[in-house]
Amino acid sequence: MALPSLEILIEQFRKLPSVGRKSAERMAYSILDYSKEEAELFAKSIIDAKENIKRCKICHNFSEDEICPVCRDDQREKSIICVVEDARDIISLEKVKNYNGVYHVIGGTISPMNGVTPDDLNIKSLLMRINNDGTNEVIIATNPTVEGETTALYISKLIKPLGIKVSRLAYGMPVGGELDHADEVTIMRALEGRREL
Amino acid sequence: MALPSLEILIEQFRKLPSVGRKSAERMAYSILDYSKEEAELFAKSIIDAKENIKRCKICHNFSEDEICPVCRDDQREKSIICVVEDARDIISLEKVKNYNGVYHVIGGTISPMNGVTPDDLNIKSLLMRINNDGTNEVIIATNPTVEGETTALYISKLIKPLGIKVSRLAYGMPVGGELDHADEVTIMRALEGRREL
Repeated sequence: MALPSLEILIEQFRKLPSVGRKSAERMAYSILDYSKEEAELFAKSIIDAKENIKRCKICHNFSEDEICPVCRDDQREKSIICVVEDARDIISLEKVKNYNGVYHVIGGTISPMNGVTPDDLNIKSLLMRINNDGTNEVIIATNPTVEGETTALYISKLIKPLGIKVSRLAYGMPVGGELDHADEVTIMRALEGRREL
Repeated sequence: MALPSLEILIEQFRKLPSVGRKSAERMAYSILDYSKEEAELFAKSIIDAKENIKRCKICHNFSEDEICPVCRDDQREKSIICVVEDARDIISLEKVKNYNGVYHVIGGTISPMNGVTPDDLNIKSLLMRINNDGTNEVIIATNPTVEGETTALYISKLIKPLGIKVSRLAYGMPVGGELDHADEVTIMRALEGRREL
């Protein structure tokens, strides 16, 4: 059809998670129905999000400031740290609203197959926080996958000798699933039934 | 979570067709993993598509020039016009590759309920083309919905008195469905089995 601008836009939409060719086409066409202002707003929001959102210096959560809103919040219980694989898992956990501790994003899982070793993850900074911040409990909320379990075990072995309570989210979530996909009730049950490692 | 840039981006993704809150969140997060250059390319492709893609002066198809590639193509049979509701239907028809005529986008369907009258559609320009361009056949490819059928009937009643062959896409497509969603084989069958009105 020789509409290079449209083809480029379709390709851009296809790069998004779970977007196939047909969906990408529909998205691109919908942009053609936008006003000039709407298209500019959309484009600007992409640039802005990329530019403004950094990583929290303490927990590696997404943040528009040096320190994220959770770490800055005086009401949060700083002695409980919930360890997650990815910053987006924090959003899922925050939706439940009954967790009042803080977080630590390790940025993945130990996976020798993919060449990811403990050194590639934010585990040293976690140990440093535990040593310095008076941590009482660490809840490990890595995903219930093989890599997530391995990582949970690895971290618990490092932390338990320090005399700190280490727990793991209960299997309220479907095994093999991802935290990011779980509904809020499931996450709440998993939090309540957390078991000591 | 107080990440206004992210919330704005999620809202932008939610405005796209068939994108719910969860999908929009995943899309927005995926942007955070983009490099600065990738984010800028995506933003630019939105602006470019909106700015560069206009409507063909002859058939109202999407086009980056005054006249669209189909109308400009000397190999296309100008005496056969396929009437579609929407410019994106042309992409679906072009994928079949065995239609060699031209198109006319009427821009919707007659729908008294929604206040759309024949005057709101590109029907006058269709009649003008038929009068001036030596048209032999008009294939009406409006969607097989009540409004699409009504519009097909209305157009055929205007054109048949001019001594022009008018046909309608066969019901190879599921009734109530939309051209935009049909697969290529279905569209091919519908083209082959077109019946005279």
